[in-house]
Amino acid sequence: MRKFTVQEPDQSIRPALQKKIDSLTKPLGSLGRLEKLAVQVGVIQQTLSPELKVPYNIVFAGDHGIAEEGVSLSPKEVTAQMIINFLRGGAGISFLCRQHGFRLKVVDAGVDADLPEAEDLISMKIRKGTRNYLDGPAMTTEEMERAIECGAQIVDKCREEGCNVISFGEMGIANTSASSLWMSCLTDTPLEECVGAGCGLGSAGVRRKCHVLKQALKNYSGDRSVEDIMRYFGGYEMVMAVGAMLRAAETGMVILVDGFIMTNCMLAASKIAPEVLHYAVFGHRGDEAAHGRLLQMLGAEPLLDLGLRLGEGTGAVCAYPILDSAVRMINEMATFEQASVTQYF
Amino acid sequence: MRKFTVQEPDQSIRPALQKKIDSLTKPLGSLGRLEKLAVQVGVIQQTLSPELKVPYNIVFAGDHGIAEEGVSLSPKEVTAQMIINFLRGGAGISFLCRQHGFRLKVVDAGVDADLPEAEDLISMKIRKGTRNYLDGPAMTTEEMERAIECGAQIVDKCREEGCNVISFGEMGIANTSASSLWMSCLTDTPLEECVGAGCGLGSAGVRRKCHVLKQALKNYSGDRSVEDIMRYFGGYEMVMAVGAMLRAAETGMVILVDGFIMTNCMLAASKIAPEVLHYAVFGHRGDEAAHGRLLQMLGAEPLLDLGLRLGEGTGAVCAYPILDSAVRMINEMATFEQASVTQYF
Repeated sequence: MRKFTVQEPDQSIRPALQKKIDSLTKPLGSLGRLEKLAVQVGVIQQTLSPELKVPYNIVFAGDHGIAEEGVSLSPKEVTAQMIINFLRGGAGISFLCRQHGFRLKVVDAGVDADLPEAEDLISMKIRKGTRNYLDGPAMTTEEMERAIECGAQIVDKCREEGCNVISFGEMGIANTSASSLWMSCLTDTPLEECVGAGCGLGSAGVRRKCHVLKQALKNYSGDRSVEDIMRYFGGYEMVMAVGAMLRAAETGMVILVDGFIMTNCMLAASKIAPEVLHYAVFGHRGDEAAHGRLLQMLGAEPLLDLGLRLGEGTGAVCAYPILDSAVRMINEMATFEQASVTQYF
Repeated sequence: MRKFTVQEPDQSIRPALQKKIDSLTKPLGSLGRLEKLAVQVGVIQQTLSPELKVPYNIVFAGDHGIAEEGVSLSPKEVTAQMIINFLRGGAGISFLCRQHGFRLKVVDAGVDADLPEAEDLISMKIRKGTRNYLDGPAMTTEEMERAIECGAQIVDKCREEGCNVISFGEMGIANTSASSLWMSCLTDTPLEECVGAGCGLGSAGVRRKCHVLKQALKNYSGDRSVEDIMRYFGGYEMVMAVGAMLRAAETGMVILVDGFIMTNCMLAASKIAPEVLHYAVFGHRGDEAAHGRLLQMLGAEPLLDLGLRLGEGTGAVCAYPILDSAVRMINEMATFEQASVTQYF
């Protein structure tokens, strides 16, 4: 597998960032989380005047063989239908990208359908859907490595356009199932505590989903390394997101993390290169049951808590204005000295 | 005092709004809080296609006589200095208004200084600061009524410009003290549970502030009506905000509520006309100690929880993109039928 060299950004600039923030015309610490975000972005970019440029939201899409076991409320055909909806601008992520000035690209990582060509659709189809992991791996090692590589390539394309802040989302019926398995295996959490309603299962549906996933886990006999878990239970869209996150961190970009599925991709990425977390801004605490717990395990403090559970990158892009506010704060606010305001602390 | 006729908006449009939201291409309920906000704005505006137009943030500014008792870390001169900073675009609220397309107006409700004329400064000075309420009322009944009237007039000016969504903020050294007294008296909460650090007092400072305010409360012998509490402990900027909120609700505008002080103004407004709460969108849970409790008492679910405690309207304006997202969602998303996506629920 491609090696990523993700480095912890040099922290020595931190006191200078804090000093600049404390000189701005406001009570000390009174912009709370915005101040912490400004420090984080300043450290990533190694500057007292950070900038957010050409934000992209990449939706990785793929189908999952496990969907045939009835683990999702939604039929598999919806994956391809929704891609058309993204491209026509009618989806949740579409209006959010328009609102916040994001460029939206959809990547066909492994959709089980032939998709039409379109300007904003990048075809990197590894296969028409993963294999059903109920009794065997979802993908081959070669497929997984290719997916990681494709994710990295997408990020490089965005960087060439000047992008330095990137959000990742997903579309893939049954991918909360894969995410629950990743979480359970990579954090040693009992599976039933990682399984939730996905796009809207009732309690009987959740029980059935849990039963199927337990069976799949029972049939798994690999070495439980992060690579093997990703390969065995993964979706192509999820593995691609992992590669994309690692490459984004390697090249010093700010990464906006969406909901339960993307947080699991960040989890997997952090098992490969723990330093990736320095580049992550967690957009929101989603409504999927285990998301809050997973965020806690990662030491993540999400910006929003609005009961979202749509995916596509919606929770990450929805949180973007807060990140933007943080950067504007440190660049645009006057200091006590500049504004001739008495500094009383 | 001017009478306001604030009516509960007709709720009969609610099922049609919900039906429209449920027809959009997303799992049922998956946009969480955005869906509830879209319903609220649709009900206020009595339409399935609500719009947010010409948003304004009004900063009401005033000085407090009680400041001479040392209840605030910040010297009183800062009120006037910060107004100049607002007008020059260097304050926290300045960059947020630029970011989110708000027009910013500062109202001199009672600043204890002579301010220069400026395009975005509206002079409605009732008096150069309130009286010290340690042993007598902060203002006269006539002054209070005039402040209420001025608040209403400001809102009418904004409406004439096409504004239908309005945020209120404040600037006034020592106005968390007045807010704590309002909260204590209007919600029957022990004073010490309503007092916090304001712009940054340490624990000794908070104790002193609490001691002074207890003394003020002991010396008060009025009838505890909302009007009398407002008059006795109020700031001109706070009373003006109450009048503005009532007028905004009376005319069917969406009201964005900022932090501890503005939430107390909404509390007072709701004691005069409980229906005002139908028009309120609470921007954030601030860092001032009692704010969370007060929000709970009002049944408010703030949109953000970012540890902000700056005032000026910053927490309200910072939350605006979420409200905007809600309105865009209901107007811009494709339905299952329009997008030919299988509706599986």
